[in-house]
Amino acid sequence: MADLTRERVEAAYAALMTGDRNKITEYWSEDLRFQMPGNHQFAGWFNGLDDYLQKMGKLGEACGGRIEAETRHILINEAEGVSVDIYRLDGYRAHAEEGTVSPYERLQVEGVHMLRWENGKIVEGRSALFADGVTRGNLWWSPVGTDGERTEL
Amino acid sequence: MADLTRERVEAAYAALMTGDRNKITEYWSEDLRFQMPGNHQFAGWFNGLDDYLQKMGKLGEACGGRIEAETRHILINEAEGVSVDIYRLDGYRAHAEEGTVSPYERLQVEGVHMLRWENGKIVEGRSALFADGVTRGNLWWSPVGTDGERTEL
Amino acid sequence: MADLTRERVEAAYAALMTGDRNKITEYWSEDLRFQMPGNHQFAGWFNGLDDYLQKMGKLGEACGGRIEAETRHILINEAEGVSVDIYRLDGYRAHAEEGTVSPYERLQVEGVHMLRWENGKIVEGRSALFADGVTRGNLWWSPVGTDGERTEL
Amino acid sequence: MADLTRERVEAAYAALMTGDRNKITEYWSEDLRFQMPGNHQFAGWFNGLDDYLQKMGKLGEACGGRIEAETRHILINEAEGVSVDIYRLDGYRAHAEEGTVSPYERLQVEGVHMLRWENGKIVEGRSALFADGVTRGNLWWSPVGTDGERTEL
Repeated sequence: MADLTRERVEAAYAALMTGDRNKITEYWSEDLRFQMPGNHQFAGWFNGLDDYLQKMGKLGEACGGRIEAETRHILINEAEGVSVDIYRLDGYRAHAEEGTVSPYERLQVEGVHMLRWENGKIVEGRSALFADGVTRGNLWWSPVGTDGERTEL
Repeated sequence: MADLTRERVEAAYAALMTGDRNKITEYWSEDLRFQMPGNHQFAGWFNGLDDYLQKMGKLGEACGGRIEAETRHILINEAEGVSVDIYRLDGYRAHAEEGTVSPYERLQVEGVHMLRWENGKIVEGRSALFADGVTRGNLWWSPVGTDGERTEL
Repeated sequence: MADLTRERVEAAYAALMTGDRNKITEYWSEDLRFQMPGNHQFAGWFNGLDDYLQKMGKLGEACGGRIEAETRHILINEAEGVSVDIYRLDGYRAHAEEGTVSPYERLQVEGVHMLRWENGKIVEGRSALFADGVTRGNLWWSPVGTDGERTEL
Repeated sequence: MADLTRERVEAAYAALMTGDRNKITEYWSEDLRFQMPGNHQFAGWFNGLDDYLQKMGKLGEACGGRIEAETRHILINEAEGVSVDIYRLDGYRAHAEEGTVSPYERLQVEGVHMLRWENGKIVEGRSALFADGVTRGNLWWSPVGTDGERTEL
């Protein structure tokens, strides 16, 4: 079984990005539970890898593909099977004006993922956001825009 | 064309409850725009009577049918074609425990509908909630429950 | 005792603006209860005219004096002693950039006041906001700005 | 200079609990910046150790002393001078009923502190909450209770 290292955390996220299910299941358990913070339409616990991957796809659609993610730090507690990575996101909703500061149109947040590993695979993930990021997430994933009109995702 | 009276406002809501489209369109314009407050999945502007009626159906499902509504006051400004009705709701999410005070499970709110009338029919409706009712609505229409698990509506 | 008319509602607000306590108490009861919507530091019930006037003063400070208010409609139900006025606000926090769309810096909301009258005076007022105005109010009256730094009011 | 270890993180929190400023400054920099998540009255960045300690005192008053905290995991990235501790809180507002599930009265949250260390002392702390904990924090530190009445802290 692979050791829990920073490199393995990075490899787990890289596998996710490939979209290749065989690669993904080298790191992510089929029984994954993953929790998104807040109370918006993508918030709460997702049960099973397929539920999680489907959600990730919808998130991608929601933002129209303009999202930048950066990992700032990775921390490991191997004895307890826990990793934490600290990330920063900057994304725009489809059709949002470049440079807008409306949290209904742009998601600028920093947060953490806490991952729980068993037998070399991630069985649980939870996300939390610093500052007022959860409110910003609620507004960004809300169907309503700055003008109150609905975007049906 | 019918006068704008309290009785006519009451009749408009009663027509809605029948589900009979012919009766409904005596009071509600086909071009109705209706706005729900907050940032939850049913928030924002609904465009057209069908969009609105479909939403109302989903609201009914969301609450599992246990919702009580009471109209407390109706006010009319006939010259400007505006009515306001003040209402109180008490509803439970499906499977919620009787008497719970968790806003994720129970919706207890008071608010207003402002209706704009043209040629005897409602062309615009907007809702607003008193106190912290909008937060309560956001939590109640959220997919997440008190325990963080998702209810897929 | 004065009749409850639209003119009297307008006069009640005009009296409030003068800051002259004698004028104010012609319309507003000493025992006034007034409720602000949301969960921010000025939200909830204010008890007594002095508590309410003090809060209004702090609101003024909070916005640095740049707030525009417009009354759009007034509705009366004289039999039940209730008036509703529909208003629009556009305000900036001190030092906010002109034209910003950040709800942490600018308050653009529409809402209603429901006033309950007894013996010619307002004994109860409640405010509610349309659209996502309550969230906007929570952000605007929050100590945190767009950048997460605190403004001590 | 002391190494960054889990024991040193635990000792830093233990020092905080003593209230002894000399002990505290062995671990916490005078120039500490600390950020609380959300948009409530204690949210945002606190600047300097005194500002932070004063806030912590008010938090204690706010909850009337009934708050239990548990640290679940500590993670270290010594090379980058960062620690993360994962905690759980369960607190009641003064006068809240034992066992209540109203987030206006009870704070049940899990979250993380990310601490940045320089020369053996904490210079920056940031907190983030899992699930809908930020909303729960906003409601708990709100002046309004379940019934909409204000608690002046």
